[in-house]
Amino acid sequence: MGVVVPLEEDRGRGQNAVAQLQALVADEMEAVNEFIRERMSSDVPMIPDLASHLINSGGKRLRPMLTIASSKMCGYKGKDHIKLAATVEFLHTATLLHDDVVDESDLRRGKKTARTIWGNQASVLVGDFLLGRAFKLMVETKSLRALEIIADAASIIAEGEVMQLAAAKDTGTTEDAYLRVISAKTAALFAAATEIGAVISERNGSEAAALESYGRNLGIAFQLVDDALDYGGRAAALGKNVGDDFREGKITLPVVLAFRRGNAEERAFWQRTLQQGDRQEGDLEKAVELMSRHSALEDTTSRARHYGAIATDALAIFPESPYRDALTSLVEFCINRNH
Amino acid sequence: MGVVVPLEEDRGRGQNAVAQLQALVADEMEAVNEFIRERMSSDVPMIPDLASHLINSGGKRLRPMLTIASSKMCGYKGKDHIKLAATVEFLHTATLLHDDVVDESDLRRGKKTARTIWGNQASVLVGDFLLGRAFKLMVETKSLRALEIIADAASIIAEGEVMQLAAAKDTGTTEDAYLRVISAKTAALFAAATEIGAVISERNGSEAAALESYGRNLGIAFQLVDDALDYGGRAAALGKNVGDDFREGKITLPVVLAFRRGNAEERAFWQRTLQQGDRQEGDLEKAVELMSRHSALEDTTSRARHYGAIATDALAIFPESPYRDALTSLVEFCINRNH
Repeated sequence: MGVVVPLEEDRGRGQNAVAQLQALVADEMEAVNEFIRERMSSDVPMIPDLASHLINSGGKRLRPMLTIASSKMCGYKGKDHIKLAATVEFLHTATLLHDDVVDESDLRRGKKTARTIWGNQASVLVGDFLLGRAFKLMVETKSLRALEIIADAASIIAEGEVMQLAAAKDTGTTEDAYLRVISAKTAALFAAATEIGAVISERNGSEAAALESYGRNLGIAFQLVDDALDYGGRAAALGKNVGDDFREGKITLPVVLAFRRGNAEERAFWQRTLQQGDRQEGDLEKAVELMSRHSALEDTTSRARHYGAIATDALAIFPESPYRDALTSLVEFCINRNH
Repeated sequence: MGVVVPLEEDRGRGQNAVAQLQALVADEMEAVNEFIRERMSSDVPMIPDLASHLINSGGKRLRPMLTIASSKMCGYKGKDHIKLAATVEFLHTATLLHDDVVDESDLRRGKKTARTIWGNQASVLVGDFLLGRAFKLMVETKSLRALEIIADAASIIAEGEVMQLAAAKDTGTTEDAYLRVISAKTAALFAAATEIGAVISERNGSEAAALESYGRNLGIAFQLVDDALDYGGRAAALGKNVGDDFREGKITLPVVLAFRRGNAEERAFWQRTLQQGDRQEGDLEKAVELMSRHSALEDTTSRARHYGAIATDALAIFPESPYRDALTSLVEFCINRNH
């Protein structure tokens, strides 16, 4: 694979995968959105204002779609998947609010972050409010196993974030250590979102395990591609919204690879810019060039492809269905997306 | 009642009440503490370090003791009250961690806050971790009604904090508005801590309602006394750890009363110091003097006594027992304490 890959063709395939999944779950997602609107209400006006800023900011709602599609693939006939999907989105939104405070981020999805408009204090507290509402929503389903899975994921996500904070700025982070971080901070919620689909359908054995594995590996692949996209993607072309991780001094897999493969002078560059936080004009371009020199972005995407393959194989025990097809195609989307 | 009240005598009574409660629930609290130690563990060392800094900082563990005593008063024979008490303490600790970040506090109970040692970022994330663990712990009890009560309290606490943030620095806050804030941010957790004692004992009717009312009113009384103590207590004597609320520009009931009862010049003082945040040398002493002039601290304590009386009456439907006695005496402690 060269440095420049046929992105256009991949992109088309990816977009179709999401459109296919969206079409399949459109009615349920309408109900999920209705639930979200209803349950983020409060007599304290700042709460729905702040929450809706992020919730309506044009995210793909990937995680709740996973819960819906997983439930339907398991033949679920009830209504609780709607509440659990809303729970997953609330939990995700709460995490994003707190992340933006922790990372001191000013932009998310190209829009001002809530903390730049309402302040860090309100972002922390509205995040807590959404966590509380998430738990309240899921308790209503009375599914103790689903409750256990989601509560567990909530701890693990925070554990992953603290792990990342503790490891932050260490350019010597190993690939394994980095995988532990993203397994916790990103993949745990994907895994919970898909596993609960099996659990509420009373498929607690190999099908729950398969969906847990699908979600976990999809989540890892998703995060790795995100990491590569933050430096312009496999094609290593600087575009808009590129360089956030670099500016925040984050150690991600492309950095881990470029650092290990680099010579002494290159390692000194990574240490200066990320470990010591001394970043100057032109450093981002230099970082991208070093990544390109060592195929760090392509290889990050190759690693993502490896986890994507595990996710796809995990689904193979399910009989053929439009849901299984859509979830399988989604893996391709996650790997080939360019945003 | 004069400005100087016989604190010593009251103090003796209060201390006995806590000792009485502590002796009654000593075995269970040992088990609660064991659970807390076990469940705040993590492979990420920063998590237990930071969590134990606050959890072992010598708090009274009032809220978990309430859950234990309420359960025992209702004749509970099982083991779940231990887990629920630990849940309540985790939820409380998570709230304190986030509060210290939101209030930018440097000291709590005379010790450096976690945020000054480990930073705001870690405090937010470890708070989230403890929230996740709290929910995980309570799911293990499989008591859906208790889960519902605690999840609800978690949202309401955050709602109260946002309410306070939105109303912050408005010296024109009414007593009613202030009561809404503390009902949510403080009393909701006291109410949940006591109500779940009835719920797990399958006393869902008037006994659950009575314990909910006891906890709510005790929580309001507790917060109001805290507010008075922050200006030196009813005796209006400046001592150690006094003036935190003033320095943080917080509007509490003593301020609400002193502002409303003051003349134009006094109101200008409150507006300058709390609304505009322009505080100078000698302002705290002046604030205490104005409160003394208008009996603001004594009357805050009188208001607390009113809610304490409601709490005591709520318990009257329970048959006489050492637990009922201890919970009743606890109301006196909360009102007469001097720390």
